[in-house]
Amino acid sequence: MTNQFTRSDKAYQVFEEEQISRGIDIDQAVEQIKALQIETPSWGYGDSGTRFKVFQQEGVPRSPFEKIDDAAFVHELTGACSSVAIHIPWDHVDNFAELKDHAQAKGIGLGAVNPNLFQEDIYKFGSVTNTDPDVRKRAVDHLLECADIAKTIGSRDVSLWFADGSNYPGQVDFRQRKHWMYEGLKALYEALDENQRMLIEYKFFEPAFYHTDLADWGMAFNMANKLGGKAQVLVDTGHHAQGTNIEHIVAYLIDEEKLGGFHFNSRKYADDDLIAASLDPYELFLIFNQIQLASADTNPDVQKTAKDIAFMLDQSHNVEKKIPAVLRSIMNVQTQFAKSLLVNHQALAEKQVQQDVLGAEQVVREAYEFDVRPLLHRVREELGRPIDPYKAYEQSGYEANISSRGKGGMSW
Amino acid sequence: MTNQFTRSDKAYQVFEEEQISRGIDIDQAVEQIKALQIETPSWGYGDSGTRFKVFQQEGVPRSPFEKIDDAAFVHELTGACSSVAIHIPWDHVDNFAELKDHAQAKGIGLGAVNPNLFQEDIYKFGSVTNTDPDVRKRAVDHLLECADIAKTIGSRDVSLWFADGSNYPGQVDFRQRKHWMYEGLKALYEALDENQRMLIEYKFFEPAFYHTDLADWGMAFNMANKLGGKAQVLVDTGHHAQGTNIEHIVAYLIDEEKLGGFHFNSRKYADDDLIAASLDPYELFLIFNQIQLASADTNPDVQKTAKDIAFMLDQSHNVEKKIPAVLRSIMNVQTQFAKSLLVNHQALAEKQVQQDVLGAEQVVREAYEFDVRPLLHRVREELGRPIDPYKAYEQSGYEANISSRGKGGMSW
Amino acid sequence: MTNQFTRSDKAYQVFEEEQISRGIDIDQAVEQIKALQIETPSWGYGDSGTRFKVFQQEGVPRSPFEKIDDAAFVHELTGACSSVAIHIPWDHVDNFAELKDHAQAKGIGLGAVNPNLFQEDIYKFGSVTNTDPDVRKRAVDHLLECADIAKTIGSRDVSLWFADGSNYPGQVDFRQRKHWMYEGLKALYEALDENQRMLIEYKFFEPAFYHTDLADWGMAFNMANKLGGKAQVLVDTGHHAQGTNIEHIVAYLIDEEKLGGFHFNSRKYADDDLIAASLDPYELFLIFNQIQLASADTNPDVQKTAKDIAFMLDQSHNVEKKIPAVLRSIMNVQTQFAKSLLVNHQALAEKQVQQDVLGAEQVVREAYEFDVRPLLHRVREELGRPIDPYKAYEQSGYEANISSRGKGGMSW
Amino acid sequence: MTNQFTRSDKAYQVFEEEQISRGIDIDQAVEQIKALQIETPSWGYGDSGTRFKVFQQEGVPRSPFEKIDDAAFVHELTGACSSVAIHIPWDHVDNFAELKDHAQAKGIGLGAVNPNLFQEDIYKFGSVTNTDPDVRKRAVDHLLECADIAKTIGSRDVSLWFADGSNYPGQVDFRQRKHWMYEGLKALYEALDENQRMLIEYKFFEPAFYHTDLADWGMAFNMANKLGGKAQVLVDTGHHAQGTNIEHIVAYLIDEEKLGGFHFNSRKYADDDLIAASLDPYELFLIFNQIQLASADTNPDVQKTAKDIAFMLDQSHNVEKKIPAVLRSIMNVQTQFAKSLLVNHQALAEKQVQQDVLGAEQVVREAYEFDVRPLLHRVREELGRPIDPYKAYEQSGYEANISSRGKGGMSW
Repeated sequence: MTNQFTRSDKAYQVFEEEQISRGIDIDQAVEQIKALQIETPSWGYGDSGTRFKVFQQEGVPRSPFEKIDDAAFVHELTGACSSVAIHIPWDHVDNFAELKDHAQAKGIGLGAVNPNLFQEDIYKFGSVTNTDPDVRKRAVDHLLECADIAKTIGSRDVSLWFADGSNYPGQVDFRQRKHWMYEGLKALYEALDENQRMLIEYKFFEPAFYHTDLADWGMAFNMANKLGGKAQVLVDTGHHAQGTNIEHIVAYLIDEEKLGGFHFNSRKYADDDLIAASLDPYELFLIFNQIQLASADTNPDVQKTAKDIAFMLDQSHNVEKKIPAVLRSIMNVQTQFAKSLLVNHQALAEKQVQQDVLGAEQVVREAYEFDVRPLLHRVREELGRPIDPYKAYEQSGYEANISSRGKGGMSW
Repeated sequence: MTNQFTRSDKAYQVFEEEQISRGIDIDQAVEQIKALQIETPSWGYGDSGTRFKVFQQEGVPRSPFEKIDDAAFVHELTGACSSVAIHIPWDHVDNFAELKDHAQAKGIGLGAVNPNLFQEDIYKFGSVTNTDPDVRKRAVDHLLECADIAKTIGSRDVSLWFADGSNYPGQVDFRQRKHWMYEGLKALYEALDENQRMLIEYKFFEPAFYHTDLADWGMAFNMANKLGGKAQVLVDTGHHAQGTNIEHIVAYLIDEEKLGGFHFNSRKYADDDLIAASLDPYELFLIFNQIQLASADTNPDVQKTAKDIAFMLDQSHNVEKKIPAVLRSIMNVQTQFAKSLLVNHQALAEKQVQQDVLGAEQVVREAYEFDVRPLLHRVREELGRPIDPYKAYEQSGYEANISSRGKGGMSW
Repeated sequence: MTNQFTRSDKAYQVFEEEQISRGIDIDQAVEQIKALQIETPSWGYGDSGTRFKVFQQEGVPRSPFEKIDDAAFVHELTGACSSVAIHIPWDHVDNFAELKDHAQAKGIGLGAVNPNLFQEDIYKFGSVTNTDPDVRKRAVDHLLECADIAKTIGSRDVSLWFADGSNYPGQVDFRQRKHWMYEGLKALYEALDENQRMLIEYKFFEPAFYHTDLADWGMAFNMANKLGGKAQVLVDTGHHAQGTNIEHIVAYLIDEEKLGGFHFNSRKYADDDLIAASLDPYELFLIFNQIQLASADTNPDVQKTAKDIAFMLDQSHNVEKKIPAVLRSIMNVQTQFAKSLLVNHQALAEKQVQQDVLGAEQVVREAYEFDVRPLLHRVREELGRPIDPYKAYEQSGYEANISSRGKGGMSW
Repeated sequence: MTNQFTRSDKAYQVFEEEQISRGIDIDQAVEQIKALQIETPSWGYGDSGTRFKVFQQEGVPRSPFEKIDDAAFVHELTGACSSVAIHIPWDHVDNFAELKDHAQAKGIGLGAVNPNLFQEDIYKFGSVTNTDPDVRKRAVDHLLECADIAKTIGSRDVSLWFADGSNYPGQVDFRQRKHWMYEGLKALYEALDENQRMLIEYKFFEPAFYHTDLADWGMAFNMANKLGGKAQVLVDTGHHAQGTNIEHIVAYLIDEEKLGGFHFNSRKYADDDLIAASLDPYELFLIFNQIQLASADTNPDVQKTAKDIAFMLDQSHNVEKKIPAVLRSIMNVQTQFAKSLLVNHQALAEKQVQQDVLGAEQVVREAYEFDVRPLLHRVREELGRPIDPYKAYEQSGYEANISSRGKGGMSW
């Protein structure tokens, strides 16, 4: 039932004919979707929750190896998740080469290395911005350790999120901490190989509730600018103030050649970390639209930046099942990405120059209105994957299989 | 150093003279401040944190009895915290009469009883609004248990916060859950004695990130209205959308004779649960201003409602010391309450009728500008308490004393 | 080009087959879409802008009669806008019977009557809540005048939005104004015939920037409740705090049998009054989903409420062309309405009872993913309208025709 | 009544003694307050309103010269507003030297020159970012004209706010407009003398409701960075997303030596443009606290930046009287500035290093709690101004005098 697609499907044929009549190169779109890889987070397979309660689920991985098993199965079903991000020390193992081999044996790679600088007692008042020089050193050492791990496992990206901030006016010296932040980042920067990158994430608030040391894209961008070409900004879609036009920031950062990656998830209120595109799917479409536009830019550096963005999920599946939640997220991301390929750039540019507000808006919007499931079915079939990975998972027996892990697996 | 106040203090004299010249009855204000009691939450003395980390502190209570010890010491220092709210089952003991006796021996009483319907696995998908009738029954039984506990310990208020909600569109049936919510509340309502009350709290979001069954004051108010006179609304100052005019809601609910209580705390972003009045002190002043205005209303029912509001803290002290944080909060609440007593109601009414925008605003604002520390010093001295409870705590040796409790005390 | 649809269109056939296989009664859906009428606002055809600038457009109506001409042409193109709301005194004419006749001759009717209580100098400090009894009387007289106009033109609904509020703390007496608001509404209520309704709108802020007398649904609902069955609440989709779950409020109000109407528009920030569904189309879909669910409720009163909601646009087309903007809005509303008809209610209920979070979410979401343009084409064809009203307008010559009106038409 | 202060006033004496005991150099504080100059905006004296209505007031200036009269009277009463910002073309006169002479004769100077690029029809789709090269040229020409005017009148600052943005997804090319924005700014930059500055303002939204070309501090900062030392950022306190920690941004920009000025006003919701510090006075205090801390920085460039910030009001007095509203604003700003001088920097630094959260917070907060009116009375007396400028205005007869201007004066 989950793999019935054939190119002669009427739904697909109708779709293809319509796109061809619109001037869309459908085969090229297929190739682009095939090439889309979305890294899944190892912690997305583990237990998570709110400050009020973590509801443990059955079948949650009990080790980094089992997390990789789950991530690999997601890739097996989708062909779109060829790597898994790891979080250190959650995913610390004695032998990272072994972890890498395990992943490769399962058909995926290890992706971005994420230092964790918020769950040890010493980080209560900050990590790289702590007033205590010993703590700062410990934090920097951990960053360097992560750079080493990245080299060991052949990962390009060290992905940096800091919980550093304060809860009350007066608690800290904003400017002093800004300098310490730079020093910490600088130390990591210098330890990176030329082919490595550091992705600097920002966050509006939480866990700090008065100020965050890297509170918005401007602060992350400023750091990346000062550091140099190996430092890029990472946009987490849930880390903004209400109303923020994220696609504008995305376009802006690409234009500055400083957008390095995404953490996808959904939010309605705070950093809710829900399934990507589950609450405002149009927003993700508009983000991808900016990326596609920049990917076709005449400036080769801008184009290169746009094509070199790392796409990652960063979600907490508090009440829903873990692997199905990841699958749904991947499918949602593919859907919006696919729709973004249906925007007619030339028509858009013309309407914009004509200052035809509704005409230009319509060029973007009409792409969104298409049902791209037939297109995704073709892609998945050509990749040799089930056309509905979610249903395929339900029918796979995998869930029954991992139920033997019981409850009480790893959490973040 | 913390008890040097005398009525001949120049600062106090200057203050008193100025207030008298403004037509303020200073002795009456003193009595009103003396009468102000702010219930502290037992869980405010325990460990708390965010989803990312709970930083355990030394000296945190290891039992409900030790929580009461801490709450009692806060009352000893302030004279303003004569009761402590309890949370069931966090504060469950085999013999509640014994807990009550312990509190009384320490000089305080047990206050509002707070059912906990969010930390057991069965409540993953809701408590009184769960689709499973067995879970709903368990939840209602717990509500009834709490009503019984309240009777046992002589508490008037059962204070209700529900984590019930959903994370995704479609996940639940909004309207069905609305009816179940009413049924659950109704069962409790009928179990209450005539002199008991149930306080219905609402919350914009968290831990549910798509919808909350009691999302705003309107939903809580509607329930309280349908239930009858023993049901009132509880306003938690951190449970609103950004920009919400809370003092307007407060005035509105009092006018409807449906405001029963407050949970005080501060927030800048979400439900940050920081120290009351630490971020926008003027807002708390404006809330108290509405309460004072209604307390002088010509409608005796409105006046009675305004005078019968239960004031409680509901905070999480994640990185700051627990008892000092409570003391600071109490002092902040007293400060804004005291300032609100300095508003000249008659002058305000006159300016409002004259449509003198700036004149009316000034009547309210000038009260806020006064430094009321001398007034609070007099109050505390007359109550036989240290004039600076925070400093008195630091000098009391209590902290050193409780350090023997070590780390790893109770958390919520 | 705009009327090429035939039932044998492949796109339509694929769509129909798929829906039939999903258990959707497609003919019933067609009838429901045909029955969907969205009232357009006379002021949506006039010049509008921000406080910074009103950019006048060519061809804007110079009289209420010309506004009706434009509204009638929108209905001619869509078959979905059979009435036009009027604003008094903007649309005041000496002879309303004549205006009604003009509308009927053009093929539409006059819809909701909207009193205007914010553009005369006397309303600077409020209308029905003004401290000046003469102003309050003037305001109430205007409400009664509007009720009379509604009777004259045979309109059921008087639609009420008040700009009443304040800009500074202390400026006004919240509770006194609450009582005056009730008195004003009561006077109108009593003047209504049994078959008339008053729709009470609420707004979070603007033009008042500290408090609004009817600030949220709870305040409007409370008034409607006190007044009785002829008073209902009107939801303007742009009048909420950031993050508000509007579909929850919609379901709640229907369940209370108190939702009477909508003002559709889009917003990203404040009350931006942009084209409906142009920024978060999924939200409008979710709103319609709640309406469809309630329309199938077993409680006949709930069902009746859900089926009797007045749908209206309320938008400002500041930089885009007026009539095309209305057409686009109507098409957007139809799109989301049509999608909401594709939700399988039985499957949804089953998944909800099973507490299958992702399964239930998927039932709702999969309906949204369909491209309903083929369905809307069939509807429009059966109604004898162009299948693309927007393109039909462009080709109609209407714009060239009205350009003779020049610039400087009516504005609101 | 408004000038009764003497140094022997008990209130002042108590205040002074207390500050001395806290280690505050009160004479230095007096000098700093005396030196505080807050530029008032010429448009703050004119009629203003919302998109719904401008309520004209009696006595509003009928010419730029009369605006200057009012601004000069404000300075006469306060000694704190020695310059008035002008907006071109609102304040365009044939002979700017004459306007300057008029101001000087009245005792004030002309301050920042504000180009207006949003009220001509050609700017409907943007000014410096318009797709039409002719419009861009016109916009740049206006910028250059303003630079010339600034030179003519001896103003240092050209203050730039752009309404440029879009209302719908797809309407414009974000990145192209970013480049055009830079080109426009660059042209102005090159036209500035070495002693001139351009202040680049940013705004979250309005009048554009989808995107703003300079949407946040990061975008303004990036432009200023690329341009060079004569370009600085201007922070308007009402131009941020809800929850934004403005004092953090202030500290950040000073640390980058890129904060050039402020537009003070208050907001609860959007860009409400209410009286400064009327809604969250603590926020303005915290902003000044950051400025004071930076003014004492060991880095001379940071210190210089902090001391060289231009303070300006930018408000709309829609329902309150204009001159009194300005006076109240100035007094509010002075109040928070004065309080910020009472923070003990050394104590703060110590507590921060000790990671004493509540201790550090208390150092900041205790300064805020003081009633600084006695201090301001001394300052005003030493400046030879009435100790209560607001009351002095009421008693001055000025209002009766300007009533002869009638209604219908200048508006913005």
